[in-house]
Amino acid sequence: MTHPFLDLPPLSAAHFASIEDRVARLLRTDQDVLITQGEALLPLEGCIRSVARPGCTALNVITGPYGQTFGNWLRDCGAQVVDLAVPFHTAVTAEQVGNALAEHPEIDFVSLVHAEAATGNTNPVASIGEVVRAHGALFMLDAVASVAAEPLLPDAWGVDLCVIGAQKAMGGPAGVSAVSVSERAWERIEANPQAPRRSYLSLLDWKQRWIDGGRKALLHAPAQLEMLALEACVERIESEGPDAVMARHATAARATRAGAVALGGGLAPYVHEARDAAPVATTLRVPAEVDAAELVARALAADPVLPLVAGGGALAKEMVRVNHYGPDATRGVVHASLAALGAALGESGIGVDLEAARSAVTGAWE
Amino acid sequence: MTHPFLDLPPLSAAHFASIEDRVARLLRTDQDVLITQGEALLPLEGCIRSVARPGCTALNVITGPYGQTFGNWLRDCGAQVVDLAVPFHTAVTAEQVGNALAEHPEIDFVSLVHAEAATGNTNPVASIGEVVRAHGALFMLDAVASVAAEPLLPDAWGVDLCVIGAQKAMGGPAGVSAVSVSERAWERIEANPQAPRRSYLSLLDWKQRWIDGGRKALLHAPAQLEMLALEACVERIESEGPDAVMARHATAARATRAGAVALGGGLAPYVHEARDAAPVATTLRVPAEVDAAELVARALAADPVLPLVAGGGALAKEMVRVNHYGPDATRGVVHASLAALGAALGESGIGVDLEAARSAVTGAWE
Amino acid sequence: MTHPFLDLPPLSAAHFASIEDRVARLLRTDQDVLITQGEALLPLEGCIRSVARPGCTALNVITGPYGQTFGNWLRDCGAQVVDLAVPFHTAVTAEQVGNALAEHPEIDFVSLVHAEAATGNTNPVASIGEVVRAHGALFMLDAVASVAAEPLLPDAWGVDLCVIGAQKAMGGPAGVSAVSVSERAWERIEANPQAPRRSYLSLLDWKQRWIDGGRKALLHAPAQLEMLALEACVERIESEGPDAVMARHATAARATRAGAVALGGGLAPYVHEARDAAPVATTLRVPAEVDAAELVARALAADPVLPLVAGGGALAKEMVRVNHYGPDATRGVVHASLAALGAALGESGIGVDLEAARSAVTGAWE
Amino acid sequence: MTHPFLDLPPLSAAHFASIEDRVARLLRTDQDVLITQGEALLPLEGCIRSVARPGCTALNVITGPYGQTFGNWLRDCGAQVVDLAVPFHTAVTAEQVGNALAEHPEIDFVSLVHAEAATGNTNPVASIGEVVRAHGALFMLDAVASVAAEPLLPDAWGVDLCVIGAQKAMGGPAGVSAVSVSERAWERIEANPQAPRRSYLSLLDWKQRWIDGGRKALLHAPAQLEMLALEACVERIESEGPDAVMARHATAARATRAGAVALGGGLAPYVHEARDAAPVATTLRVPAEVDAAELVARALAADPVLPLVAGGGALAKEMVRVNHYGPDATRGVVHASLAALGAALGESGIGVDLEAARSAVTGAWE
Repeated sequence: MTHPFLDLPPLSAAHFASIEDRVARLLRTDQDVLITQGEALLPLEGCIRSVARPGCTALNVITGPYGQTFGNWLRDCGAQVVDLAVPFHTAVTAEQVGNALAEHPEIDFVSLVHAEAATGNTNPVASIGEVVRAHGALFMLDAVASVAAEPLLPDAWGVDLCVIGAQKAMGGPAGVSAVSVSERAWERIEANPQAPRRSYLSLLDWKQRWIDGGRKALLHAPAQLEMLALEACVERIESEGPDAVMARHATAARATRAGAVALGGGLAPYVHEARDAAPVATTLRVPAEVDAAELVARALAADPVLPLVAGGGALAKEMVRVNHYGPDATRGVVHASLAALGAALGESGIGVDLEAARSAVTGAWE
Repeated sequence: MTHPFLDLPPLSAAHFASIEDRVARLLRTDQDVLITQGEALLPLEGCIRSVARPGCTALNVITGPYGQTFGNWLRDCGAQVVDLAVPFHTAVTAEQVGNALAEHPEIDFVSLVHAEAATGNTNPVASIGEVVRAHGALFMLDAVASVAAEPLLPDAWGVDLCVIGAQKAMGGPAGVSAVSVSERAWERIEANPQAPRRSYLSLLDWKQRWIDGGRKALLHAPAQLEMLALEACVERIESEGPDAVMARHATAARATRAGAVALGGGLAPYVHEARDAAPVATTLRVPAEVDAAELVARALAADPVLPLVAGGGALAKEMVRVNHYGPDATRGVVHASLAALGAALGESGIGVDLEAARSAVTGAWE
Repeated sequence: MTHPFLDLPPLSAAHFASIEDRVARLLRTDQDVLITQGEALLPLEGCIRSVARPGCTALNVITGPYGQTFGNWLRDCGAQVVDLAVPFHTAVTAEQVGNALAEHPEIDFVSLVHAEAATGNTNPVASIGEVVRAHGALFMLDAVASVAAEPLLPDAWGVDLCVIGAQKAMGGPAGVSAVSVSERAWERIEANPQAPRRSYLSLLDWKQRWIDGGRKALLHAPAQLEMLALEACVERIESEGPDAVMARHATAARATRAGAVALGGGLAPYVHEARDAAPVATTLRVPAEVDAAELVARALAADPVLPLVAGGGALAKEMVRVNHYGPDATRGVVHASLAALGAALGESGIGVDLEAARSAVTGAWE
Repeated sequence: MTHPFLDLPPLSAAHFASIEDRVARLLRTDQDVLITQGEALLPLEGCIRSVARPGCTALNVITGPYGQTFGNWLRDCGAQVVDLAVPFHTAVTAEQVGNALAEHPEIDFVSLVHAEAATGNTNPVASIGEVVRAHGALFMLDAVASVAAEPLLPDAWGVDLCVIGAQKAMGGPAGVSAVSVSERAWERIEANPQAPRRSYLSLLDWKQRWIDGGRKALLHAPAQLEMLALEACVERIESEGPDAVMARHATAARATRAGAVALGGGLAPYVHEARDAAPVATTLRVPAEVDAAELVARALAADPVLPLVAGGGALAKEMVRVNHYGPDATRGVVHASLAALGAALGESGIGVDLEAARSAVTGAWE
C-alpha cells in the first residue's frame, strides 16, 4: 500500500542543516539555531535546565500562564527566583524590568514570554532587552506565539535563547521547534555541571556532536515529516513575504478588537491598551450574566471550525479568545468569528449590532 | 527535494484493479467497472458516443443543465433525440418516462441524471428503471451527484451505464471517475461501428485490452495520485459505513430545507416537494427585491469557506444553493450556512428569525 | 479520518493559470499553453483530431511506435497520410523530411515524435522545424520523452503544437499533460468543422471558454492532486536548474552507452550513432543466444526497482532498454543497472567485464 | 499555496487515543500505552530516569551499544549498576541473567535490549522475562528493533516497560515512539521522588493528566504528521498481517545469512549462532585484508539506495551490516545487497560465487 507519509527517502543531515539555516534567516540571527525534536516545551525546558543551577538568580517575568511553568523549572534546578508578575491584561514595561534588576543586582538570568496566546497581550521585547543586556543577565525569550506575527529580532534585541514553534502564526507543525543560542549562552551552559547532558533535554549534546562536528551527523533519526512541514511553512512565509505575513496578523488583531467593540453586547477587550494586544489572539471579557464557555460552545455549534476558545483556568467563564493566526488571520475568519459570537449573544437575549461589527472589521482591513 | 506527491512507486495494474473492485463493491454491482482517467464528463461523453449512432433513438430526460449537454452529444452522433423536459423544480416521474416510451416505441436508449446538483432535485431511478427495462432500451445514469449521498443500485435498477465521480458526496478527487457497464451495453457498443476506438474517449479500448486481457496491463500510465485519493475516500466511506454517510446527507438536506423555511425573509425551497429534493444540495428562491449573487457574495465575505453558491445561468439572481456534501454534510456547516444567509438578508433590511432557523436545524438532526 | 490526499481546498482558476504559466516558462514559449486533464495521449489525439480532416494531407514521420498511432488517428479523420518511416535504430533527418515535402507539396501538417522512449533515439527537431516552416505546413511535436531531458524550444523551432507530459525526465505525474498551441494552429482548428467541440477531446473548448475568457473559469473540476504534483515537479526543476537537469540526462545516456559497450557480453547499442541516442533511455541489442525478456527478468529478480525493460512487440526478445530519466538519471542507478545486466549475462554463461563497465560509467560522469 | 503537510485539521485527543489503542493491540498488551512525542530515546531515557534513584540496584544487560547508554543514565540517577556484558556476537541467556540476579539479590530493575540493530543479534526475552519476574525486579525492554520483526509479547513475558519505535520493521516514522507501562511500574515511578515531573521527559505527567483524566486533553500539541504516519504504518501492518510481516523479516534474515556464506570471499556471519541472529539486520565480518567501510562505499557507489552500512565504532573496518527491515525485507533487496557486496569484493580481487549466493537466497525464500 502506497502512502505519502511512508517510505520517504531519509532526511539527510545536509537537508536538516539547510532547514536550520532557513529558520535562522527567518529570525535574522547569526547565532546557532537548533531545530529541537519535540514541541516547543522541549527547548524551553532544555534552556532553563541548561542554565539554571544553585547560585543562579533568575528574574522570571510572569505575564501569562507559562511564567508559572518557567518558575517551577527554575526552582527545580535550585535557582533563586525573583518573580515579576504583572496583571495579565497588560504588558510588562522595560521600566518594571529595570527596577527589578536594580533591586536584585545578583540576577543573572531573565525569562520572558514575548506574546501570550492565552491572555492576548504582547511585551515590548526590544526595550526590555536593552535593560537586560545593560545589566548583563542572560536573556531567554519564548517567542512561540510571536514569531511571524510581529517583529522578532533576537540579535538586535540581545536575546540569548530564543525559542520558537511553527504551530501558530507560521501555520506549520507543532512536533518540532527551534532555539537560537548565543555564544555567551553556550558558555554559561558548558560551565553548568548540572546542565542536561546525554539527554533528550540536552542542548549541549547537539552543540558538541552536531554543530561542533560540522553538522555532519544527526544525534538520532529526526521527525522527518515534521521537518518537511517546517520547511514547507517557512517556504510559504518567504513566498508571501514575512512583512506581509506580519501585516496580515496585525490587521486581523486590529479588526477583531474594533469589531468586538462595535458589536457591543457587553464584550470588552481584556487587554486594556491596544498597543499591548498580541497579533495572534484577541481576548474579550464577556458580560457578567454570560458564561464564556457556554457562549463559545453555542458559537461553535453553528460553525465548529471557527477559532474561538473560552479562557483557561479561572478565566473560563469570563473570557472569550478569538484566535487569528496562520491561515485564520484573514478578514473572512474574523468576520465569521464575530458574527458567530454576536449570534450566540443574541440567542442569550443580549442585543448586538452585527452591522456595526462588520463595518468596523471592514474598516480595519482597508 | 522530497515532496510527498513526487517519486511515489508506480501504481501497479493489480493495485488499479483492486480500486476498481472496491468501487464496484460500493456500487453493489456485478457489472464491469472501469475507472476512467478524467473528470466524470469523460465517461459520460464516452458512453453516449459509444452507443449513439444514426438509426438510434434516444429518450433524453432533461431535469437540469446536463440534459442539454447529453442531447448535444446524442445529436452529434446522428441519433434521433426525444427530449423529455420537466420543470427543474420537480423530479421526472416513472409515468412520464413510460408515456414517452409508449409514444416512441423506437426508443432504444434512455439517458437520465440521478441527482441534479445545480437545481437540487433528484429523480426516482428505481421506478424509472423498471419502465425502461420493460421497454427494452439501454439505460444510462449520471450518478455523480447521488453516489454516496442516497441509495444507488445500478444492478437492481437495471442501469446499463452508471457513471460516478468522487468529488461530491464521496469527498474525493475529481480527476478520475468510474462507469459500470452491463453485458448488453458492451454488446451495443461493440456493434456500433462509430463507437470511439483507439481514442481517449473509448470505453471499448479498455474492455478489449484491459478487462478481456485479465486486467494485466493498463492502456497508459494512470493518474496515480487521483487513484490513491479515490482509494482513500472509498476507504473512508467504508469506515464510516455507506449507510451512515447517506444518512448524514439526508439529514443535512432535511435540516437545510427546514432551517431555510424557519429562517423566513422570503427564502423558499426551489424544489417544490421535499421528496424530490437532492441530499447533496438545497436550492432556495430569494425574494424578488434581492439579487441572489449579491446575497451570496455578502455571506461569503464573512466566511469564504461556506458552501454557498448563486444559481447558474438564468437563475443567477433568483436562486441560492446551499451545498451539503462530503465533509460539508454536517450540522455545523448547515448552521453556519443558514446563519450567514440570514445575516446577509438582515443587512439588506429583511427580517429573519435566526433562532427559529437554528431550532429547525437542530430538530432535524435529532 | 485525516488523509493528505483528501479535503484539500479546491484548486482555484488563478492557481491553475499560474501552473500553466510556469510550464510555459519551462518551454520558453509565448504561445498559449493548455494543461490537459489526462495522460499525454489525450492532447496528442486532441491535436490530430482538431486539425485533420478530409482534404488535409499529413506527413507522418514514423521513428517509433507512436507514429503508427498518429497515422491511425489521421486516417480516422479522413486525411491523406504520407508515411515517412525510418529504421527505428536511427533518427530521421531534415533532408528526408525536406524530400518528402518536396515530393508532396500538398502536405499541410507534419507530425513528429521528438525522443522515442521505446527505441531510444531522438530526432533533430531544430533543423526539421526549419524545413517544415519553409514549406508552410503546421508542425506537431510529441515531446513527452524529451522535455527536461534535452533542449526543447517550440517557438524557436516553429512548432505549432508541442505536447508534453511530466512522467519522464520531469519526474512528475502522468495524469495531466500540456500542449502549447500557436496562433496559426488555432486558426486551422477553428476553421475545421469536424474539430472536436464540446468534447473531452476538444482543445477549442478550452481556447474559447478558458483562454479567451481571461482564464477566469475552468471548464470542469481539474485533477487537483496531479496539478499540484505538476507544480511541485516544475518547482524542483527550476530549483535544480533546467540546464543541470538536461546535463544530468545527457551524462546518464553517455555513461550507459559507454558502460554497455565496455561490459561486452554481446550487448550492442541499438541506436547506431551516439548523436541519435535519446537522453532518457538507452536501448541495447542482446546476443542472439539470449532472450532479452528473460535477461531482464533475471536482472530484476535481484533488484526489482531497477529501470530495466525488455523491448516491446517484435523486439521483446532482442532488445533491453535501460531507462535513465527523472530520479533515475544518476550515476548510482546507471551503475546498478549495468551491474545487474552483467550479472544476469554471467549467469547465462556469457563473459562480461564488470570492472570495465564501471570505469566507463565513472569516466562519462567525470 | 496548498501543501499536503500544512493546514491539516488538528489531531483530536480521541484520534490520538485511538492510535494508542491500535499500538496496544499490535503489542497485544492490556497495559497502558503512551505514545511519546519524540524519538525512542525519549521514552527509554524517560523510563530509566522515572525508576532509577539512589538505593535502586539495576542489572544492566549489555549486548550492544545501547547498554552503555542505559548504564550512564542509571548511574546519573544514583542507582547502583550491575553490568552483565556478553560478547556482541552472541545473545545473553536466561541462565546468565538468573546467575546475576542470584548473585545480587538486591537488584530491583533489569534493562535489556531485545534485538540489537547495530550488531545483529537478538535476545531470548521470553525466558529472560521468566527469571526476572521470579526475582521480582522491574523489567524494561528496548524493543525498537524487534517490534514487527519477531514475536513481542510484553504481557506474556512480564515486561513492565516496553519501548518501541516505528522506524525499523514497522516501516514508519521515527519522530514519535511508544511505551507500555505496567501497574507495578507506575507504582514504582509514583513512589520515586526524583522521577521527572512537569518535564518533557516525564511519563508521570502523561499518566496523571492524560490517562487518569480519561484521555480527554493532550498535554501539548502533538507531532501530528508523525502520528498520522504511525497510524498509517500500523494500518499497513494490520493489512499485511503481523505474522506475515514477521515471517518476511525472518526469511530475509535467513536468506541473507545463507547467501553471504554461499557468496564466500571471506564474509562470515558476525553472530555465531543463527538462532541469535536478529531478523532486522545481518552483520558480517569481512576478510582481514578488506576495509569494511571502503567495501560498503564501493557497493553503494553502484546503488546508493541499498541498505548496507559499515559497523560502528571499533567495528568500522571489520563489519558490514545488511539491513533488511520494513520495505527492505524483500527478496529483491537481499539479492541486490549481496550482489553489490560480491561485486565490490570482486573489484578488490577477491573471488566470490555470485551464483551460489543467488541460489542460497532463492532457496531460503522458497
